[in-house]
Amino acid sequence: MDRIRSQSLASLPKRRSGAGSVLVGIGDDCAVLNIPSGYETLVTTDFSLEGIHFRREWHSADTIGHRCLTRGLSDIAAMGGEPVAAFLSLAVPAETSQRWIDQFIVGMLRLAKRFGVTLAGGDIAQSPNGVLADISVVGSVPAGKAILRSGARPSDRIFVTGELGAPIALLEEMFAAPKRKFRPASYPAHFYPQPQVEVGRYLREKGIPSAMIDISDGLSTDLARICEESGVGAVISANAVPVASLGRHEVDLRHALHGGDEYQLLFTAPLKRRVPNVIAGVPVTLIGYIDESGELAIEHENGYTTELEPKGWEHFSAGAKNKVRTTRK
Amino acid sequence: MDRIRSQSLASLPKRRSGAGSVLVGIGDDCAVLNIPSGYETLVTTDFSLEGIHFRREWHSADTIGHRCLTRGLSDIAAMGGEPVAAFLSLAVPAETSQRWIDQFIVGMLRLAKRFGVTLAGGDIAQSPNGVLADISVVGSVPAGKAILRSGARPSDRIFVTGELGAPIALLEEMFAAPKRKFRPASYPAHFYPQPQVEVGRYLREKGIPSAMIDISDGLSTDLARICEESGVGAVISANAVPVASLGRHEVDLRHALHGGDEYQLLFTAPLKRRVPNVIAGVPVTLIGYIDESGELAIEHENGYTTELEPKGWEHFSAGAKNKVRTTRK
Repeated sequence: MDRIRSQSLASLPKRRSGAGSVLVGIGDDCAVLNIPSGYETLVTTDFSLEGIHFRREWHSADTIGHRCLTRGLSDIAAMGGEPVAAFLSLAVPAETSQRWIDQFIVGMLRLAKRFGVTLAGGDIAQSPNGVLADISVVGSVPAGKAILRSGARPSDRIFVTGELGAPIALLEEMFAAPKRKFRPASYPAHFYPQPQVEVGRYLREKGIPSAMIDISDGLSTDLARICEESGVGAVISANAVPVASLGRHEVDLRHALHGGDEYQLLFTAPLKRRVPNVIAGVPVTLIGYIDESGELAIEHENGYTTELEPKGWEHFSAGAKNKVRTTRK
Repeated sequence: MDRIRSQSLASLPKRRSGAGSVLVGIGDDCAVLNIPSGYETLVTTDFSLEGIHFRREWHSADTIGHRCLTRGLSDIAAMGGEPVAAFLSLAVPAETSQRWIDQFIVGMLRLAKRFGVTLAGGDIAQSPNGVLADISVVGSVPAGKAILRSGARPSDRIFVTGELGAPIALLEEMFAAPKRKFRPASYPAHFYPQPQVEVGRYLREKGIPSAMIDISDGLSTDLARICEESGVGAVISANAVPVASLGRHEVDLRHALHGGDEYQLLFTAPLKRRVPNVIAGVPVTLIGYIDESGELAIEHENGYTTELEPKGWEHFSAGAKNKVRTTRK
């Protein structure tokens, strides 16, 4: 948890006051939230399933709790919004210890606190098999300012935050050596992924993106979603994609292109719009441009351009019998 | 489905316009809702688990979809709110047919339509075992007007809507004759329970209740929650409890007292406050009063008063190995 320790709480992004508050939390039929006048309400739900999104033999309870909430916060970030409240529905097998549940909640609450998010409701129930956690996050955004997937236009440039591919590269190592222990502190991008709420907020405040999405399902798949919703095509440059390192080595380009299970933001911006190289300490990289083709293409180092197939996120099931067919919002 | 057919859509309660709308639904990172100025946002989540809340051998897909959404709408009703949007996270085993999923959605959407609720987001994922559905409902209520559990005061009278006990009495018959087919049309209170949104709205508009809850977990358990949150006690009269009929016979009083799996409203009102006998076609019955004792008591026909133990809702698991330990909001 070096990365978590190294950031003092005072310097961490907090929810802006005025963007919403929880009036009634856990303990009534509903939570009651105040989303102030002039703001719209954002809602996202994400189901995290054992064997698909995590494995208890690889992930401690607190990292699972953290990862579940990250998915919801990242969806709020991708709209340029402020998270306000989270709601947890957790189902665990009968033999699950109270300590495991407590640690799950600790992991979730630690992340919630960083963003000023209140856990405002939830259920804990017994599952017939495996741990299932559904997280709902409610946030807010100034009226009319939510950044959708559908606004990309030909000649817009395409940007991505952070460096890509480390979580999936680690997952591949886990599959290759299932008994090996990987220290969460050494692999924070996988065990404690950070939602880019502050970056999303900055981009929205400055009116930079024409379209935005988080790349939790992988760059290729999520870029395809922007193109589909916007009715456009895209070309990205293989050279330009910011590839993460794992240990001493850069990960494979395919992990950066198709990986997923990471929570960086992918956005488009009009050609003439200035985009900073770094926002809130996170690098922002130009990786390509939008065109009218309706197709996804990738320019390789050798100068050739080929089709970029969306191949994101079916990873945890790779070694399992289960075939995933998650449809995401 | 007699009951559903017999009510023309035109005469059904619809969400009041002005209480909120869905600006962006399925297909982006978040849904975007407009909750108008002067309203607060209500949020509730409910996990419905196979073997605990339903059984596929007893319940058709459309009744399960209906029942899942009823739980969320009923929570909104219990605050005196208007439902606006629903979000579904559904996990089903690999062998589940597309037809089953479609029918589940049909059952849910039919109910949603009746209340002007939009299905604004969701996931469908693969479950390792059994069907699990988590439903989130977002609604609205005029600012400061949400009816909480905590407002009951000594000398308040206690009321309940509808007639109680039929769903659980039917469940007992199902356990006794697991192979028998029960026609959903003949047992609408169990298969197609109706959330009391219109009654909740009326009560809130008239400022009648000091506290309110839905009795999805059973009268005794949910009355205990009001007493706990309000720091009061309660006495109810066994004679007064409105007992439902199943077929030609009244159900046992114990089912009406402890049943649950039904979606009537339990509310308290100040002594001098006039309360109609019927609201939106639903009977409203005076069943007791709040006192300062901090305890729950029941007056029997013979004049004796004994403790009323909270014994609600652990039913579907009665014949299963699973022991339920659901904690509800």
